[in-house]
Amino acid sequence: MNRRRRIYEGKAKVLYEGPEPGTLIQHFKDDATAFNAKKHEVIDGKGVLNNRISEYVFQNLNDIGVPTHFIKRLNMREQLIREVEIIPLEVVVRNVAAGSLSTRLGIEEGTQLPRSIIEFYYKNDALNDPMVSEEHITAFGWATPQELDDIMALAIRVNDFLTGLFLGIGIRLVDFKMETGRLWEGDLMRIVVADEISPDSCRLWDVKSNDKLDKDRFRRDMGGLVEAYSEVARRLGILGESENPVRGETPRLVE
Amino acid sequence: MNRRRRIYEGKAKVLYEGPEPGTLIQHFKDDATAFNAKKHEVIDGKGVLNNRISEYVFQNLNDIGVPTHFIKRLNMREQLIREVEIIPLEVVVRNVAAGSLSTRLGIEEGTQLPRSIIEFYYKNDALNDPMVSEEHITAFGWATPQELDDIMALAIRVNDFLTGLFLGIGIRLVDFKMETGRLWEGDLMRIVVADEISPDSCRLWDVKSNDKLDKDRFRRDMGGLVEAYSEVARRLGILGESENPVRGETPRLVE
Repeated sequence: MNRRRRIYEGKAKVLYEGPEPGTLIQHFKDDATAFNAKKHEVIDGKGVLNNRISEYVFQNLNDIGVPTHFIKRLNMREQLIREVEIIPLEVVVRNVAAGSLSTRLGIEEGTQLPRSIIEFYYKNDALNDPMVSEEHITAFGWATPQELDDIMALAIRVNDFLTGLFLGIGIRLVDFKMETGRLWEGDLMRIVVADEISPDSCRLWDVKSNDKLDKDRFRRDMGGLVEAYSEVARRLGILGESENPVRGETPRLVE
Repeated sequence: MNRRRRIYEGKAKVLYEGPEPGTLIQHFKDDATAFNAKKHEVIDGKGVLNNRISEYVFQNLNDIGVPTHFIKRLNMREQLIREVEIIPLEVVVRNVAAGSLSTRLGIEEGTQLPRSIIEFYYKNDALNDPMVSEEHITAFGWATPQELDDIMALAIRVNDFLTGLFLGIGIRLVDFKMETGRLWEGDLMRIVVADEISPDSCRLWDVKSNDKLDKDRFRRDMGGLVEAYSEVARRLGILGESENPVRGETPRLVE
């Protein structure tokens, strides 16, 4: 296990060399960070939950023909993925005003947007991931206009699927962040969904109570993060009713 | 003069009712503001220079078929313009990295951009004119996708013209801001260039010395603002060699 070559360590995940060329192992840590890592905590069980929720989302995206980097889950904290060339953009899709959109444009949190809005942020910690527009992206060559079209089409499909998935379990998808990468198959390149999709990267509000079931519980010091993520997993049918994935008490995953 | 109805007063200009329906009088003040009016000064002669430089630019844009709101200059501080419905966007075209682009994206000031980049800022003082993308603009209905196409086409034409104009007089057009408005002619609506184009709204660097001939002299406390604007006017052939438009010493404009 420790002999594996570590390719990259991020704030919440580690990437290791995979068993075959063109594959990687994506390991989910328990670290929670916010505000460009100015705030940091280790939250027991978060990595296990995100690994499992992200597996569920990515497997279903694969099944409906939305290409992703996901191959299969390997164990509690790890999944096998295809190696892609990450496009240095965070793609945010918003359905309801919240967070930075509310602040920047003065729109009250919770306001339904006139339509879904796609935003791009340049992945660069030193610059605090600044928002960028299609003009910046194509001018600086972070993605070509054709790639941007593909990325936006993927973002809309993922948003459609996730909105439906969460609505079905009584959760409002306020917004989410996704990443994309270039996947080569011989000479052919296509854009696929990469990274993770989990309560770390979505805003998820209970339809009835408006309770936050996402990382805002950490950002806003609300507590109850693992309980909220567990609730999402339970509603998705991944976790059994009474299980809690804290350290030393490995959650029994429903198969 | 004082009987005229004041329609709007901004930071650097006042709009009065015009002599005929569908017209307005645009009055250039000497006020200089920056950082959303946190910094403010009155600079004798600035309004006179901007009125004349903006007249020169807008008249030439009209002549090459780029539609603007400009009709004619009336006197030292005023021009007659068509009344338009201002689109609440500042349209910024950048050729060289400077100012907020350099800060946000970590690109050294003075770096030639791979291509001209168009940015949009939502005109809203309370929100500090936040940068927005085409997604925000069309989702919130500030402009339609067709209008945005028209605005971008206008911005490119204005940039081409201004780049050439200033290059011809030894000045590098680093970037500029323009505004646009909807002009109705009967049932027909078209987008035209509005507001002003002057050293207040451009970054202009002397080609040889890189001296700043624009409002950054005010923003960055460099002094010599009227001298710099006068130099631009002189090179454009508007002001005579030895004239200086300070209060009580009305500049004799070259006709």
